[in-house]
Amino acid sequence: MSKKPFRFSVESWSVEQQNKEYETPIFNLFKHRLRLNSENIEGDFYIIDAPNWVNVIAITADREVVLVEQFRFGVDKPSLEIPGGVCDPGESPLETAKRELQEETGYISKKWSSLGKVSANPAIMNNYNYFFLAEECEPNGTMNLDQHERIKVHKLSYQDFLDRVEDGTIDHSIVVAAVAKLLLRET
Amino acid sequence: MSKKPFRFSVESWSVEQQNKEYETPIFNLFKHRLRLNSENIEGDFYIIDAPNWVNVIAITADREVVLVEQFRFGVDKPSLEIPGGVCDPGESPLETAKRELQEETGYISKKWSSLGKVSANPAIMNNYNYFFLAEECEPNGTMNLDQHERIKVHKLSYQDFLDRVEDGTIDHSIVVAAVAKLLLRET
Repeated sequence: MSKKPFRFSVESWSVEQQNKEYETPIFNLFKHRLRLNSENIEGDFYIIDAPNWVNVIAITADREVVLVEQFRFGVDKPSLEIPGGVCDPGESPLETAKRELQEETGYISKKWSSLGKVSANPAIMNNYNYFFLAEECEPNGTMNLDQHERIKVHKLSYQDFLDRVEDGTIDHSIVVAAVAKLLLRET
Repeated sequence: MSKKPFRFSVESWSVEQQNKEYETPIFNLFKHRLRLNSENIEGDFYIIDAPNWVNVIAITADREVVLVEQFRFGVDKPSLEIPGGVCDPGESPLETAKRELQEETGYISKKWSSLGKVSANPAIMNNYNYFFLAEECEPNGTMNLDQHERIKVHKLSYQDFLDRVEDGTIDHSIVVAAVAKLLLRET
């Protein structure tokens, strides 16, 4: 691993004004008036203000990965993903991860580790996704779905899971990013 | 690789109504009224309608990765990323990739291959990111930046690039997802 931090050196734009343009139950849309001092220019930029998210790569003692299939409204079709969800106010990412794994799949784990975090989309979103690995997962208790969640739980062998990412069956960018963090940790 | 396609089986929600709620130069916000027929329920969901994107893992003959550093308005700080950008109307993803690599970095390549695509965020966005690998890149011509782009080009060794993804210096979810696709292809 690199020891010396990378030195970021591009000039920051300063926020002159922030205005909330539209509210939804999941995210809000802001317009920011930003200024680049060295060039004396300003521009308007649109930012999606969203809560942090977590995702969990959940693996059983038999090396099967626990996945959720659900209909996704953005792409208007079903999607196969690792479990995850939004951090409630005051909840730590690990607490969210444990809660979402149980609620969405009915599985729990006693062996948790962090796989780091990514920025959801630094150009237009202000939130982060936290990744966790849950090993030796086992079924316990019942699922507890949100109002509009309709989830089917699947288990794939670890290799099949990786193959499904490679062949594009699993194509949620955040899920694919979590796989990168896992693969890099394994090497 | 898996041969048999995964059989998606959750019920689809049907779109009863679509309304454009807000327009920005980059994306538009829609409200969709959706219906789950089997349960006779409806709900309102918010969708960000955005153009497709491309990103390029650009590697020189010396196995250095060409990266761009720019200030990102969503997270309000600089970000280190692989080059990329929005597909113009009528442009194929590969054409966009070639154009963006040259415009953002001044590098070109004659050795292109696809690394697949991901859904930007299937829950709330309708667009896809296409990934390409450009090998034997070399500097040629000049950079040609968009109105508000201020970019610093960096070259990192391939291993340093992977280390920067692992340690979180490079944290754009889409960029990290591209690394997963590359690592999976290499294995």
